[in-house]
Amino acid sequence: MNETLELLEEHRLFGGWQQRYRHTSSSVNGPMTFSIYLPPTADDTPPPVLYWLSGLTCNDENFTTKAGAQRIAAELGLVLVMPDTSPRGETVANDPGYDLGQGAGFYVNATQAPWAAHYRMYDYVSSELPALVREHFNVSDRQSISGHSMGGHGALMLALRHPERYRSASAFAPIVNPSEVPWGRKAFTAYLGTDETTWQAYDTCYLLAQTTARLPLLVDQGDSDQFLPDQLQPARLAQQAEEQGWPLTLRTQSGYDHSYYFIASFIEDHLRFHASHLKA
Amino acid sequence: MNETLELLEEHRLFGGWQQRYRHTSSSVNGPMTFSIYLPPTADDTPPPVLYWLSGLTCNDENFTTKAGAQRIAAELGLVLVMPDTSPRGETVANDPGYDLGQGAGFYVNATQAPWAAHYRMYDYVSSELPALVREHFNVSDRQSISGHSMGGHGALMLALRHPERYRSASAFAPIVNPSEVPWGRKAFTAYLGTDETTWQAYDTCYLLAQTTARLPLLVDQGDSDQFLPDQLQPARLAQQAEEQGWPLTLRTQSGYDHSYYFIASFIEDHLRFHASHLKA
Repeated sequence: MNETLELLEEHRLFGGWQQRYRHTSSSVNGPMTFSIYLPPTADDTPPPVLYWLSGLTCNDENFTTKAGAQRIAAELGLVLVMPDTSPRGETVANDPGYDLGQGAGFYVNATQAPWAAHYRMYDYVSSELPALVREHFNVSDRQSISGHSMGGHGALMLALRHPERYRSASAFAPIVNPSEVPWGRKAFTAYLGTDETTWQAYDTCYLLAQTTARLPLLVDQGDSDQFLPDQLQPARLAQQAEEQGWPLTLRTQSGYDHSYYFIASFIEDHLRFHASHLKA
Repeated sequence: MNETLELLEEHRLFGGWQQRYRHTSSSVNGPMTFSIYLPPTADDTPPPVLYWLSGLTCNDENFTTKAGAQRIAAELGLVLVMPDTSPRGETVANDPGYDLGQGAGFYVNATQAPWAAHYRMYDYVSSELPALVREHFNVSDRQSISGHSMGGHGALMLALRHPERYRSASAFAPIVNPSEVPWGRKAFTAYLGTDETTWQAYDTCYLLAQTTARLPLLVDQGDSDQFLPDQLQPARLAQQAEEQGWPLTLRTQSGYDHSYYFIASFIEDHLRFHASHLKA
């Protein structure tokens, strides 16, 4: 590893630093941008890291500016890392829809043209970015992962495929069964092709039935979420978890929708959940 | 008063409701948009109101989405009201600069063409909007006011001109002496004309020397704020306050800049300050 980081901006925030970096990613074969929050530290003890994966149309700044997570991260001594949701740029394939292409990487390694050239967000988020963060920042190996909607899918899927890398995973309104809902089927068909057996490695409901490691999972879902009936359906995940005896906490939040206002209202619970599992 | 409110959106947030409304304003002679946060309430006791005035280029949504204030407002039982920073629309005069025209109303009643037709934010924020809020929501008469940069100027200026209407005022990085700095001189020349004596009624440093009521003031200023030396200069306000024996708390926050990250870091202190003065 000899990747350089270009600091795009930094701001003092809750006694720590909110920073934004650009670097050249070998995984996606081009530039990537991520944001990071470094909490105030009393000594040189390397803090653990929570990765946050955002949803459709988002980049690294939505959670950074809207969720209010840094206040709690500062208190708990958590580093927050927010990657972008896809590769970007004029040479990167795109689609007119908001749910495919730039801003909609779905955290998979695409195998189909024209996507395969750059859309390798699975490798980027699971391997390259954590290595980069460990190389450039004073952080421990302990990490957890969370996300929203498409990013909730990403967080749960990555944690189930690499339970040895994450202490815990959580999600807000995740797409738990992408193989069976319109958003997921459109994206997986484009990125992975029509052989649906190749989709299973990226489907949380399928993975939960296959994985034997039992890392703690927390999911919040608003019952006024417009995408609940057609795209999200967390009851499918709850049923799988019950059948597998998996430690899943699924909470239904009355009156909450799919927005960042929902995330802001409950992010403190998620950070405290992760912090309890990230203790050395 | 018989103004109707059009609900544009609403979201559940920290157990209360974040809402956005459009209405026809008699003050600015056209449509205005504002956001409001209604905290959860245990009974019908009308809660007090904190007005928030935003800075240059902002609308009603910057503070709403980025400051994280609603968490504390929910706990303290405060209604938050966030007006837009100017009238808007194709028929409303504008300027190519970010610091004049739409998004830059400076909370004055313009007297000069072409601005005088719509730019009457002083009347809107000081009189029309509070009356509208009292008519349509279950709120008490107790109110305080806060703001950022141009909105910090607005909050302090309005509170000093109407100390009987506000229990307390606070500001982040306010323009305390607009008559003497580039942002203020450009805006006041356009909106009020070249007779600088007409500017005094909108200048916090001048008003502080004239006003005898002593309402509590809290000001936070980051020392890494790029606008500190040329546009803000809170030391001028501190000197005036000291000469007048005024209860001003001016805090310098080390390393903080002019962004909403600065506001997010200290908004809790401001809401607790106002709540302590808004008790019945």
